[in-house]
Amino acid sequence: MPHFGNVTEGLRFRIVLGRGVALGPGKADLLDGIERTGSIAAAGRAMGMSYKRAWGLIEEMNEDFGAALVHTTKGGKSYGGAALTPTGKKILTLYRRMEQKAGRAIAGEMRALRKLRTDISE
Amino acid sequence: MPHFGNVTEGLRFRIVLGRGVALGPGKADLLDGIERTGSIAAAGRAMGMSYKRAWGLIEEMNEDFGAALVHTTKGGKSYGGAALTPTGKKILTLYRRMEQKAGRAIAGEMRALRKLRTDISE
Repeated sequence: MPHFGNVTEGLRFRIVLGRGVALGPGKADLLDGIERTGSIAAAGRAMGMSYKRAWGLIEEMNEDFGAALVHTTKGGKSYGGAALTPTGKKILTLYRRMEQKAGRAIAGEMRALRKLRTDISE
Repeated sequence: MPHFGNVTEGLRFRIVLGRGVALGPGKADLLDGIERTGSIAAAGRAMGMSYKRAWGLIEEMNEDFGAALVHTTKGGKSYGGAALTPTGKKILTLYRRMEQKAGRAIAGEMRALRKLRTDISE
């Protein structure tokens, strides 16, 4: 799966679903990390994020979608295991698919933009 | 042309062309505003942006692309007229085309994501 951080070349996009309701690379990467590590703390740590910040993002997503995206085995704010719920998996899959489709759709313009930059600086 | 602000529903995307070199909706809207108003101050004001901030973004773009994107008729930091250079126009056109293509490419997933949110909250 492609990961586009702040410094990685490519497309970095955010879906705005309503006023103040957005899904972007940070939240998507956090969900990916939870899927991979089974832990909110580990997923956050891998992104240089405090547990508090990671948990805050998850609470935000749960509220935005009106359903839990992440299931914690020891509940609440404990450091227990965590996994994506079916809703969480669906949302992450949709986001990654959008990322891939959008990336393919703009590949030609990306090349043109890069070429413009190179041509100028030569 | 579609404008996606922080609170407007839809896709909001940023192109990262290199470490610390990014082009996103703020810069694109600023270029659009300059094209429309012929003034950096007016373009910035329409976005609730100070002249200093608008000028800073333009300087950043000029530096990132190694060429002027905006031409000012009274030069430098004066409040004279402003227009996009051919390079500025090319870059803005490429960005808007990417925005449109990406938006079309992810339309199905956007609908699915919105439906998921509605279904849950019902």
